[in-house]
Amino acid sequence: MQKPSNAQGTRDFGPEVMRKRDFILQSIRRVFIKYGFEPIETPALENLSTLEGKYGEEGDKLLYKIRSNQDLRSRITDVEDLEKYDDLFNKSKEFQWLPSKSKLGLRYDLTIPFARFVVQHRNDITFPFRRYQIQQVWRGDRPAKGRYREFTQCDADCIGSKSLLHEADLIQIYNEAFSAIGLTSAVVKINHRKFLEALVDELKLDFPVGRFTSTLDKLDKIGEEGVMKELVGYGVDETKCKQLFTIIGNAELTVENLHTFAKAFNNNAIAQEAIDDLEAVLRYLGESKLNIRIELDLSLARGLDYYTGCIFEAIVPDSGMGSISGGGRYDNLTGVFGLKDVSGVGISFGIDRIYEILEAESLWPENLHINATVLICHFDEACQLYGVGVAAELRDAGLQSVVYSENKRISKQFDYASKIGVRHVIVIGESEMESGALTLKDLTLGEQENLSIQEIVTKLAE
Amino acid sequence: MQKPSNAQGTRDFGPEVMRKRDFILQSIRRVFIKYGFEPIETPALENLSTLEGKYGEEGDKLLYKIRSNQDLRSRITDVEDLEKYDDLFNKSKEFQWLPSKSKLGLRYDLTIPFARFVVQHRNDITFPFRRYQIQQVWRGDRPAKGRYREFTQCDADCIGSKSLLHEADLIQIYNEAFSAIGLTSAVVKINHRKFLEALVDELKLDFPVGRFTSTLDKLDKIGEEGVMKELVGYGVDETKCKQLFTIIGNAELTVENLHTFAKAFNNNAIAQEAIDDLEAVLRYLGESKLNIRIELDLSLARGLDYYTGCIFEAIVPDSGMGSISGGGRYDNLTGVFGLKDVSGVGISFGIDRIYEILEAESLWPENLHINATVLICHFDEACQLYGVGVAAELRDAGLQSVVYSENKRISKQFDYASKIGVRHVIVIGESEMESGALTLKDLTLGEQENLSIQEIVTKLAE
Repeated sequence: MQKPSNAQGTRDFGPEVMRKRDFILQSIRRVFIKYGFEPIETPALENLSTLEGKYGEEGDKLLYKIRSNQDLRSRITDVEDLEKYDDLFNKSKEFQWLPSKSKLGLRYDLTIPFARFVVQHRNDITFPFRRYQIQQVWRGDRPAKGRYREFTQCDADCIGSKSLLHEADLIQIYNEAFSAIGLTSAVVKINHRKFLEALVDELKLDFPVGRFTSTLDKLDKIGEEGVMKELVGYGVDETKCKQLFTIIGNAELTVENLHTFAKAFNNNAIAQEAIDDLEAVLRYLGESKLNIRIELDLSLARGLDYYTGCIFEAIVPDSGMGSISGGGRYDNLTGVFGLKDVSGVGISFGIDRIYEILEAESLWPENLHINATVLICHFDEACQLYGVGVAAELRDAGLQSVVYSENKRISKQFDYASKIGVRHVIVIGESEMESGALTLKDLTLGEQENLSIQEIVTKLAE
Repeated sequence: MQKPSNAQGTRDFGPEVMRKRDFILQSIRRVFIKYGFEPIETPALENLSTLEGKYGEEGDKLLYKIRSNQDLRSRITDVEDLEKYDDLFNKSKEFQWLPSKSKLGLRYDLTIPFARFVVQHRNDITFPFRRYQIQQVWRGDRPAKGRYREFTQCDADCIGSKSLLHEADLIQIYNEAFSAIGLTSAVVKINHRKFLEALVDELKLDFPVGRFTSTLDKLDKIGEEGVMKELVGYGVDETKCKQLFTIIGNAELTVENLHTFAKAFNNNAIAQEAIDDLEAVLRYLGESKLNIRIELDLSLARGLDYYTGCIFEAIVPDSGMGSISGGGRYDNLTGVFGLKDVSGVGISFGIDRIYEILEAESLWPENLHINATVLICHFDEACQLYGVGVAAELRDAGLQSVVYSENKRISKQFDYASKIGVRHVIVIGESEMESGALTLKDLTLGEQENLSIQEIVTKLAE
């Protein structure tokens, strides 16, 4: 008998973990909804042609691909042929892997399926379209700490509008979501593609913007010296490199700091486009007081080929966890599916990393571990039957409740309650049935009192 | 440019469909929680060995299987070898399909993964364990009306207890869930394996119980005559068949009707075991008033090899949709993974079929189509900026709100509101900004009034 186990890089979530994950997802979902984002879902199975070539060479390698004999089978309409097919299928194990023309792949992210969704349903969608999507994705990556083969993405995008109001709303969403989760130490970094282009322009670098930014992206890891060395290796002279580091830097996102950057750029016209955009974002943010730091970071790139305007990244400093969210504006998301000139902006939360930070720093809300179910304990079968009625009354009042199903000693029943994390138990014995005053035990406080069902309902509903 | 499309048998869910699906899932989920069921999730990807051989010959054919080169790659630890591998991978398309030893499959139902979960985590689980699980499953079946290759299952099971309290709770769950969904025309059919065994015993049939019940299962489709013909074909004599049809039948689940069946069975001892169980269930149900009909149906089998006690099935008569839920007690679910003698009982809702019945019979709740977001419309940029502040105040009060992001004519903004299903819009012009009295328009009633933000919040919070 084989010992059952999870496939490599995948996980089971038991009730306790589910409660914690749900806390994160619900916190974010509530904020998305508050900002008028509407839910959509796309299937896990996509035609392979929808996915292939969309995630670069590395991404293609990590795609889970399926050649299904089912698709072959489904094209057989004649009953006798179907029997022949099934006969073959059962005879030869190899036949089960015969490639059919139809190839499938598993969802790799939520962005490309969303692009497909928008193009496919463009006549039914009213733009600007604010959608959120919380679903699993699969990547055949080497499993590591915080890296799984099946994990959850949590995206919000607004598509079909160039207004910078959306960027401002997304910053507000970051603020509210991280506040709700209790991660007020989170920092949202912002950059703008035009700043990166302006750097290449101002330093008169004569190689592709992409190569420049992919080097710049490593700043966190290899430091200024490392970046300089790499750029010099590409033929950039040292003076220019030094000039680069006088321009880029971190600063709180304020109008004043934007003007300081403008000066550092010698009022470069391309940089000015970035500054105009970010000033508009600040206008939309207005006087609103944010709990988290919003930081202008001119070294932030996150794969420039994709983003065309603002670029976002959220981190929790000193968590050792890297980015917990990323996003930005893109002007050609749907182009790969033939729909040109649709601009959008979106962000994506990394639920698993947020989970691990909350876990490592014990930042979960206080009562999250408590099972809200009321367990009804009893001394014998008659008491249990009476308990079924009590449970029904609690449920009618909207409370969760379950009657202990076995005939065991009362101490065993209390053990069970503690083990499943229940806080409140009701004990029913003969005297309780006679008087109608039930014993309500609070296992957290170790207290108990005799109350009528109505009093219990009032107390627990609080 | 290829036209993007869904993989065959899969679907996108836009906001309207999501709202409807969510209504069903939330209705059921709330009832599960009320009865003390706790959520778990298992991965979509399972080791193929966990799934293969568990769903019969037909099921094995419908399993989605994945041979991932990723698993091969992940076993290479040497960096140079990894480079060689990636080189090969990029050179030869065929290499991408090279089978590795590690094979994966997609979740086919929630029952087998739950059994694996229970066995794998048995030391962390406190029994009896009430779990619910709402996740996608995949079957490479021929797509048809109401049959998809990717669909949602919604299961509740209680494992590790033989108490019939759980059967009674599941009937209550059926009652509450169908009532919440508005499907009070649903009928829950109940049978017991011992009734089926008693039939074979009483009629002294000399062939396997399984063959008998698989014929009996067809009663709905082929009628008494068809069943009789098939049984006679198997060598059962006609008198016995006629006797069979005098015994089986449909009746409301009551103690009286149970006794009537006992008589029809000549007080067969095996039948008595079923009657004892069902009487215990009725005792636990007590005086509770149910909105739906609970029917004893002695022809219900649902794959007898699996169920060992009560068997459940829910239908909506005349919906043409077949069963919308099924379940029962099993005594050896975890046996396939080496853990013997764990008894459980559970039910599973077919969300897609329930959806289609509600859709066909227009049974959705009245306001489900309304988008609860308040759209803030404006006459110019200054009004829009003012609107951002209004939106923030609405959100602080817990309302959903979005500021229209474009500079378009007010009539276009109203069009947008209707198209995305919004009921309430706030209109901000110069006079509104001056007076602070905003125009709140109700697009459903076609009414409008001038109110302060605070008055709007109070009105909409209702």
